[in-house]
Amino acid sequence: MTDIVSKADFRDAMARVCSPVTVVTTNGSAGRGGFTATAMCSVTDEPPTLLVCMNSRSAQTGIFLENERFCVNVLTGEHKDLAGFFAGRAADMAARYAAGEWIDMPSGNQALSGAIVCFDCRLAEARLVGTHNILIGEVVAIRLRKDGRALLYFDRNYLHVPTQAPSIVK
Amino acid sequence: MTDIVSKADFRDAMARVCSPVTVVTTNGSAGRGGFTATAMCSVTDEPPTLLVCMNSRSAQTGIFLENERFCVNVLTGEHKDLAGFFAGRAADMAARYAAGEWIDMPSGNQALSGAIVCFDCRLAEARLVGTHNILIGEVVAIRLRKDGRALLYFDRNYLHVPTQAPSIVK
Repeated sequence: MTDIVSKADFRDAMARVCSPVTVVTTNGSAGRGGFTATAMCSVTDEPPTLLVCMNSRSAQTGIFLENERFCVNVLTGEHKDLAGFFAGRAADMAARYAAGEWIDMPSGNQALSGAIVCFDCRLAEARLVGTHNILIGEVVAIRLRKDGRALLYFDRNYLHVPTQAPSIVK
Repeated sequence: MTDIVSKADFRDAMARVCSPVTVVTTNGSAGRGGFTATAMCSVTDEPPTLLVCMNSRSAQTGIFLENERFCVNVLTGEHKDLAGFFAGRAADMAARYAAGEWIDMPSGNQALSGAIVCFDCRLAEARLVGTHNILIGEVVAIRLRKDGRALLYFDRNYLHVPTQAPSIVK
């Protein structure tokens, strides 16, 4: 293995991998937290489980780990500003939440009204790899919207997921 | 936590989360393997690391774990058939590979010619969660194409990532 991959090369390459845009929330005894995440995927449906990666240097790490629960809210094109706020444009948590409408879930977490999907999760495990925690969540509740155009992150731009016929690959 | 999430509900909800389409390959002393994966994301850039989820019931599991390396090839719209073959439409590994053009990487893995990006990885860890292994890979080499339209999986359809201006969310 003689190749050396720089951080910049890795980031440039990852920018060419499309990803969904989500806001991950938590609410519980440790307080309320929330951040924008594009590194999220399904793990297994036995039991329904997903994962999301979170920077361990974030001041919110303790909140997420102590609450032991989080909600992954998959954004639509209407939520681009919200994505920016939760990505750090709004430092204050109250200001971040003020940019959206929220629904209290039975778990205590808040789900984003109008999200394409909300996956409310129990934190099953946090696995630290380098600078990030892989938060593995067992899904305890789902809110699903049948319509809406998902927001997509690609080439460092926000895009709409195409739903028009010409975009479907035959 | 009184909500119960069924496998079907979870799958229906995950279908509404857009994802890149990749073919994950391996080649080494345990032989050659390859499968289509949409559950893949970045983990950290210190060191450059990604993950991909693989069904542990796959007959190929041993090959990937023994080779201790894999290459994630991010597909373009031209690779839709290839995605189908590696998703199981071609049972035979030779038939799967015959559907694409490959480049030998220094690691021994084969990278897909024409992929948007190829991330050649050393298997750092395999973490079993339910039915799936989370394969955590440290990236040892990258092949990056500057053009090409990425393939996207959404609502159980293959789509092109939109690059036209009208799709960019202002």
